[in-house]
Amino acid sequence: MTKAKPPIGIDETGSREEFDSMGTVEVPADKYWGAQTQRSLQHFAIANDRMPIEVYRAYGTVKKACALVNQDLGELAGDKAVAIIQACDEIIAGDLDENFPLYVWQTGSGTQSNMNVNEVVSNRAIQLLGGKLGSQEPVGPNDHVNMSQSSNDTFPTAMHIAVEQQVSDRLLPELGKLVDVMETKAKGWMEVVKIGRTHLEDAVPVTVGQEWMGWVGQLSGAIDAIEQARDGLYELALGGTATGTGLNAPKGFSKKSAAKIAELTGKPFVTAPNKFMAQGSLDPMVRVSAALRGLAVALMKIANDMRWLACGPRCGIAELKLPENEPGSSIMPGKVNPTQCEAIVMIAIQVIGEDTATAFAGSQGNFELNAMRPIIVNNVLHSIAILADGCEKFRTYSVEGTQLDRDQIDSYVENSLMLVTALSPHIGYQAAAKIAEAASENGTTLREEAIKSGEVDEDEYDRIIDPQAMTGKGLAGA
Amino acid sequence: MTKAKPPIGIDETGSREEFDSMGTVEVPADKYWGAQTQRSLQHFAIANDRMPIEVYRAYGTVKKACALVNQDLGELAGDKAVAIIQACDEIIAGDLDENFPLYVWQTGSGTQSNMNVNEVVSNRAIQLLGGKLGSQEPVGPNDHVNMSQSSNDTFPTAMHIAVEQQVSDRLLPELGKLVDVMETKAKGWMEVVKIGRTHLEDAVPVTVGQEWMGWVGQLSGAIDAIEQARDGLYELALGGTATGTGLNAPKGFSKKSAAKIAELTGKPFVTAPNKFMAQGSLDPMVRVSAALRGLAVALMKIANDMRWLACGPRCGIAELKLPENEPGSSIMPGKVNPTQCEAIVMIAIQVIGEDTATAFAGSQGNFELNAMRPIIVNNVLHSIAILADGCEKFRTYSVEGTQLDRDQIDSYVENSLMLVTALSPHIGYQAAAKIAEAASENGTTLREEAIKSGEVDEDEYDRIIDPQAMTGKGLAGA
Amino acid sequence: MTKAKPPIGIDETGSREEFDSMGTVEVPADKYWGAQTQRSLQHFAIANDRMPIEVYRAYGTVKKACALVNQDLGELAGDKAVAIIQACDEIIAGDLDENFPLYVWQTGSGTQSNMNVNEVVSNRAIQLLGGKLGSQEPVGPNDHVNMSQSSNDTFPTAMHIAVEQQVSDRLLPELGKLVDVMETKAKGWMEVVKIGRTHLEDAVPVTVGQEWMGWVGQLSGAIDAIEQARDGLYELALGGTATGTGLNAPKGFSKKSAAKIAELTGKPFVTAPNKFMAQGSLDPMVRVSAALRGLAVALMKIANDMRWLACGPRCGIAELKLPENEPGSSIMPGKVNPTQCEAIVMIAIQVIGEDTATAFAGSQGNFELNAMRPIIVNNVLHSIAILADGCEKFRTYSVEGTQLDRDQIDSYVENSLMLVTALSPHIGYQAAAKIAEAASENGTTLREEAIKSGEVDEDEYDRIIDPQAMTGKGLAGA
Amino acid sequence: MTKAKPPIGIDETGSREEFDSMGTVEVPADKYWGAQTQRSLQHFAIANDRMPIEVYRAYGTVKKACALVNQDLGELAGDKAVAIIQACDEIIAGDLDENFPLYVWQTGSGTQSNMNVNEVVSNRAIQLLGGKLGSQEPVGPNDHVNMSQSSNDTFPTAMHIAVEQQVSDRLLPELGKLVDVMETKAKGWMEVVKIGRTHLEDAVPVTVGQEWMGWVGQLSGAIDAIEQARDGLYELALGGTATGTGLNAPKGFSKKSAAKIAELTGKPFVTAPNKFMAQGSLDPMVRVSAALRGLAVALMKIANDMRWLACGPRCGIAELKLPENEPGSSIMPGKVNPTQCEAIVMIAIQVIGEDTATAFAGSQGNFELNAMRPIIVNNVLHSIAILADGCEKFRTYSVEGTQLDRDQIDSYVENSLMLVTALSPHIGYQAAAKIAEAASENGTTLREEAIKSGEVDEDEYDRIIDPQAMTGKGLAGA
Repeated sequence: MTKAKPPIGIDETGSREEFDSMGTVEVPADKYWGAQTQRSLQHFAIANDRMPIEVYRAYGTVKKACALVNQDLGELAGDKAVAIIQACDEIIAGDLDENFPLYVWQTGSGTQSNMNVNEVVSNRAIQLLGGKLGSQEPVGPNDHVNMSQSSNDTFPTAMHIAVEQQVSDRLLPELGKLVDVMETKAKGWMEVVKIGRTHLEDAVPVTVGQEWMGWVGQLSGAIDAIEQARDGLYELALGGTATGTGLNAPKGFSKKSAAKIAELTGKPFVTAPNKFMAQGSLDPMVRVSAALRGLAVALMKIANDMRWLACGPRCGIAELKLPENEPGSSIMPGKVNPTQCEAIVMIAIQVIGEDTATAFAGSQGNFELNAMRPIIVNNVLHSIAILADGCEKFRTYSVEGTQLDRDQIDSYVENSLMLVTALSPHIGYQAAAKIAEAASENGTTLREEAIKSGEVDEDEYDRIIDPQAMTGKGLAGA
Repeated sequence: MTKAKPPIGIDETGSREEFDSMGTVEVPADKYWGAQTQRSLQHFAIANDRMPIEVYRAYGTVKKACALVNQDLGELAGDKAVAIIQACDEIIAGDLDENFPLYVWQTGSGTQSNMNVNEVVSNRAIQLLGGKLGSQEPVGPNDHVNMSQSSNDTFPTAMHIAVEQQVSDRLLPELGKLVDVMETKAKGWMEVVKIGRTHLEDAVPVTVGQEWMGWVGQLSGAIDAIEQARDGLYELALGGTATGTGLNAPKGFSKKSAAKIAELTGKPFVTAPNKFMAQGSLDPMVRVSAALRGLAVALMKIANDMRWLACGPRCGIAELKLPENEPGSSIMPGKVNPTQCEAIVMIAIQVIGEDTATAFAGSQGNFELNAMRPIIVNNVLHSIAILADGCEKFRTYSVEGTQLDRDQIDSYVENSLMLVTALSPHIGYQAAAKIAEAASENGTTLREEAIKSGEVDEDEYDRIIDPQAMTGKGLAGA
Repeated sequence: MTKAKPPIGIDETGSREEFDSMGTVEVPADKYWGAQTQRSLQHFAIANDRMPIEVYRAYGTVKKACALVNQDLGELAGDKAVAIIQACDEIIAGDLDENFPLYVWQTGSGTQSNMNVNEVVSNRAIQLLGGKLGSQEPVGPNDHVNMSQSSNDTFPTAMHIAVEQQVSDRLLPELGKLVDVMETKAKGWMEVVKIGRTHLEDAVPVTVGQEWMGWVGQLSGAIDAIEQARDGLYELALGGTATGTGLNAPKGFSKKSAAKIAELTGKPFVTAPNKFMAQGSLDPMVRVSAALRGLAVALMKIANDMRWLACGPRCGIAELKLPENEPGSSIMPGKVNPTQCEAIVMIAIQVIGEDTATAFAGSQGNFELNAMRPIIVNNVLHSIAILADGCEKFRTYSVEGTQLDRDQIDSYVENSLMLVTALSPHIGYQAAAKIAEAASENGTTLREEAIKSGEVDEDEYDRIIDPQAMTGKGLAGA
Repeated sequence: MTKAKPPIGIDETGSREEFDSMGTVEVPADKYWGAQTQRSLQHFAIANDRMPIEVYRAYGTVKKACALVNQDLGELAGDKAVAIIQACDEIIAGDLDENFPLYVWQTGSGTQSNMNVNEVVSNRAIQLLGGKLGSQEPVGPNDHVNMSQSSNDTFPTAMHIAVEQQVSDRLLPELGKLVDVMETKAKGWMEVVKIGRTHLEDAVPVTVGQEWMGWVGQLSGAIDAIEQARDGLYELALGGTATGTGLNAPKGFSKKSAAKIAELTGKPFVTAPNKFMAQGSLDPMVRVSAALRGLAVALMKIANDMRWLACGPRCGIAELKLPENEPGSSIMPGKVNPTQCEAIVMIAIQVIGEDTATAFAGSQGNFELNAMRPIIVNNVLHSIAILADGCEKFRTYSVEGTQLDRDQIDSYVENSLMLVTALSPHIGYQAAAKIAEAASENGTTLREEAIKSGEVDEDEYDRIIDPQAMTGKGLAGA
């Protein structure tokens, strides 16, 4: 596509006057934003937490789809539409990122970020059409860029698009890779017998592969739940305008704009059948957050298992050898720590905390609006980012290089008293318990005590107590 | 079915000697439980929090199914099986409830509750077969009642059954009723125009029915998510025994026992394909809890909306009139408060708190066992109970009797300045803003200022500013 | 004190008519409660969660103090006061417990529980004075028992008293005992050298006593914080009546009633200087809950440390031997699990969940009332109960009987590579690291590799690598 | 002070070789950091969450104090000490900020950030002393900069210093200003009578000043709790080195280094008497987080009250007029929203979520280390930042400019039925209730119905029903 001139950028210094319904405001002359963005920058300069750029890029798609539909419906003149669409394409491409400086902390509807987009598109379109920046002519932020729209329907639409993209295009592929690596390793170790542990205490044997497949099963379940929750994002609020009624949007706008977004993104977006739910609540976002938390819960268990199985090297369980990526201590020479596991545990805890905030915020809507949107989209996008990046690092720098200490694994199986369990069906639970207790008390082996007990002879013992056989076949139990 | 003699009950006083692998213990002579139950009673007498009876009744089904399958597979003699099954039927029917006294606070695997069931079934079966209570003959708690089983697979199986039943048979029907009542009321008010509110501030109009349908939409979404999460409960750990490998259970036990449970309950239970996931994690329970939290989030918004819309009667919004169920104040005569809404808000908060505990506990599994089961099943069942009962009371005593104050509703629509929004597409946002601001400043009506502005004449104003038309049609926006 | 006749109890069957400002209601004839209690019982029958009895007993003190002050100020006739006071004494003694059946789920102000108390005292006083039950004569629930009061000031007053008593009289003494036992054990093991562990990995040595004193330090810090938070409960809302202004209470009532409560309880209660804060918020309760959570955080670490140090017996760390209180498994004979530690971990998680609910509820006040009181007092009292009882069981059945496995402890110290750290100041971190890595790679001892390296000779090594010396002295570090 | 040459900065491009015990690594030639920083950058590039700069600046103080003490004790040569100290001063001044690029997500001990500091100080000192960057000569990161230290004691020391400074020097002064402004406004409105509201329903009157002083009371209580929790930060882990024993630190190092930090910061830091608690837990940080949450709970109530009292302008309570800072809607002209209140509510929710993460992380320590430090310090510092900045904006742009709508306030008082409460002591609760109900039912005034009832005459009514008198005096109730 041939892009219209002039190129992106405003070759000015100092400030420019912009206006909104409250009056005029000076803004930096080299930026595209207008009066309302500037007001928000001043009023909400809180802790350097910026609205995630993914929201703005998604907004680019929203504004573009609206311009196309407005043009189709004869509401928006062609030249204006073309300029708006080009500006939107530039936003989508990330070329206007530095024009979106607003904080997460702002109006709860996201109106200020919507106006930021409206203002940037307006001024960029004006520039493309040869107008005067800040004049709102021939393309005004409210009347043209925001045509047929409200923040109340566009912001949750942008939230859904942004989060859908990060889930589908970033998190899920990364989780897929992690599952693949773990499953491959599990399969390689499917016959390696190791001691099982319940309540942290020695139990009957499993195979290393079974244990790892348990983790794979958890991840797979978490992925399924994320996909289910993600599907709730495909319903878009767009077309509800201010309070869900669609006031000031032309008939058919809802369906058409959702279809256009589906076309632009290649994702199955549709218009939400109930705009009052879509704008008065953020329930689908709360469900996505809950699914992310489910992943965090699974990852925490997995990372904890891995670091406990690796604990040692000489004074702990030490069945696993994790890759040594860096010196572990500033004072203890030669120390190596399970740092990737620790990072995953911290990420899991952070996601759980962010989910707490998201659910709380989700409950605090009133009437036709949940005015807690910025905090929700910020937390959800952040949770996705740390989960995805964290899983990538965890896979690359820890899981892939994990190895077994076979000697250690074998020696545990040999010494464990819990193999006695296999005797139970033959001699009864109480008799078996006596054998185990005797071995424990006397520091002897199970075999010695079993034979001494007279309950089984050597042949029987060796036939029954077969650790490999005790691990059964596959994953599905008996 | 003809029940075998003797009837339920032990006509003894004082104590009876029972034993386990650690020795003998005195138990109350009139109770069926044995040594391990008694030990747990002593060691964990904490705050009167008892394992929910639903878990035991579900355990009745588990033990019955196992006895039937063990009998089918030739592992368990017919007379023993018959006696065990009768005892299980009595548990399922609630006839042995007082024999399950254990605390939530106990071993994290639920072994003590499993042994409580094993002991009760054992002694009741012994009684039915004419044996000596406490002798473990001819039916032993470990060797026969617990045959082919471990706590590690039976407890999560009982958890799934108990929670599935409370969700499907108690909570979902109750939610269905609430949705029905709300939807009926919504439909009756679909044409009643009222002022919308966003950010707590006056906004463009909606209809009362639209607002109520927003709530219905939230509840429907929450129901869908609960059903999805509930489906994860249909996979049962049974057959994994101690560590997921199925040790000491006969081949085919997993599938057969799940099929038997499906038959006994009429629910689509199947065996979990991955027992290491099913026993090492409680992820499906965490997902159910998350779905319950989603309902809580929705209910909180609904109950808050209702009580704020009812606030007054003379100094608040006062659009809704909630039923007056009781005097509201011990000191202020004639005061009536939105007490059912307050109860729902508190229930929602409690569910959110219990879900926090459940997710935390879900993350704390290690190796082949998540040893946080009692707290998880207790929280989830409690959340279900307060949600179901709370919704019943809320519907019966508040939603059904809610009425509108039409005068108040109409007067707000008449006075609101936000109707100006409909002028925007005609005269532009900035001009419309000036009119609204003038009316606000001068305390005049929008109509006065609009006409004074010269932007529209009286006819145009009256044609454009049609509150009914502004609410659009239905729920789907423009 | 000579109690007036008749004795407690109503020798009637069937029902009795009671009335309130909304009309008449039938109540069980053998109970003292009146119309409003009965209405609440009907409207809020939710999940068997009852308002904790401690709240009612504290209310006995509140009502008694008010009656005494009202009498002193000439507002309440002497005979009425005497009868009211006797009824209150009976409540305080627990003799009227069965007359307080209401649910936690009720009006958010606790008005229904306040009226329950008012009605019970009214009818009991009427009985004592020979009147007709349900007549509200000569002692009415609103006009006399509730004289100079509102639920809005009495309920938080009762909350403070009830929680203060459970903290001071139950929890803190129990924590004191736990600290004492742990400190005694720590002192006995102050010279036993063991391997330290950081990041779950072998580190430089500590003594068992130092490790245990770390736990003691955590508990002591938690106790201090609980005491600080508890002190915030000494400020009472009583005298603020409906909205904090003290309407309908005589001048001086606030100070006098608080002083009376201090006298009756022997605790330093005073009147809150700011009744609008005391009734509009529940911030002091939120702070108590936070302090309980702090204890939970500490207990979780301690219980986790203990069960990990005990993990084994043959395939884990196995430094500690916890008491064996019960068979651990229904399928694995001879298994013993750290069940008391698991219970503490679950209790800690539950307290954290309840604290989440409490803080959330604490944030949801509006204007002159936080209407989330029942859920807050219920959660806080429950957290206290499980913490206190849990610590008692943990101490009795686990901590007191814990023993060391000295062989295991010694062998770890001997084998650990991290003793190399002591060489660092002598040969430099990098040289020391090389020695540790060589030993790790070659499976040799540190001593061998150190000497082989030429960095130290045998004498130097044995002088520098002195595990006992490496643990330093006491708790304060270098 | 005359700074040694050369100036800060490395005039190189490309990369430089650095080494650690695992080998060599290429680092950017223009940065001071070394091998371990570079490894961490590669292994933990997760979501752009950087360790807060405040931690590094606090670390500057820690390293400086250690160098001074090591020099005093004769462990560190004077020239090395001088160079180290200058580098530390530069860190403290913020002049080396760009050399601290590491992520929050890293090893749980903070070792990588400690090594980042060690490496930067080492290289800067080498530069100052004319050595070769990356040579670790004459000043090595482990042997000299980290002398007598471990990450395990220095990182929590830096955490305490950083958090103490942000609490004491940023948050508390900001809270003081907010309290001052609110108190000033409260005092100006101490006689303005308004309707009270409980359960969102009309109640007996209060004054505007009383209501605001309720908020002031909440804030004051939160400040007190923050100060109490802050005091727990004054105990420093420094001197415990790797596991709390002080290994490799000279005798007296703990006390001397804490005293030096106290001198350098002007704050009452002391050495922690129990290093095993100080390093094995992060309980004092959890308590600070809990206190921040307490502030969040209070702020949420205040901000909610303000925005509800301002809701309208024509269809809500509308007692308060908040400053109009920006247009509220992209579609509704003239709309103004309580955006500062919304930001505060979102900040409060975020703080609650971050506190959840902090407490969870605080519970996950093991043995001699809580390896969740980065997430805890990051959440606590972030919570402080958004609370401090948020309160500043809230005060400046909302509280200071808030005005009353006196007409609205007066009219509510006039119409409220709850003034009937003052009649209760004269005519009894039930009679008063009848009057209120009649007025409600008939839409009449209380006065009309009271007189019609015959319970009072006009004079009595006008004497008793005096709203101003009903609000009592001051804040302390009756």
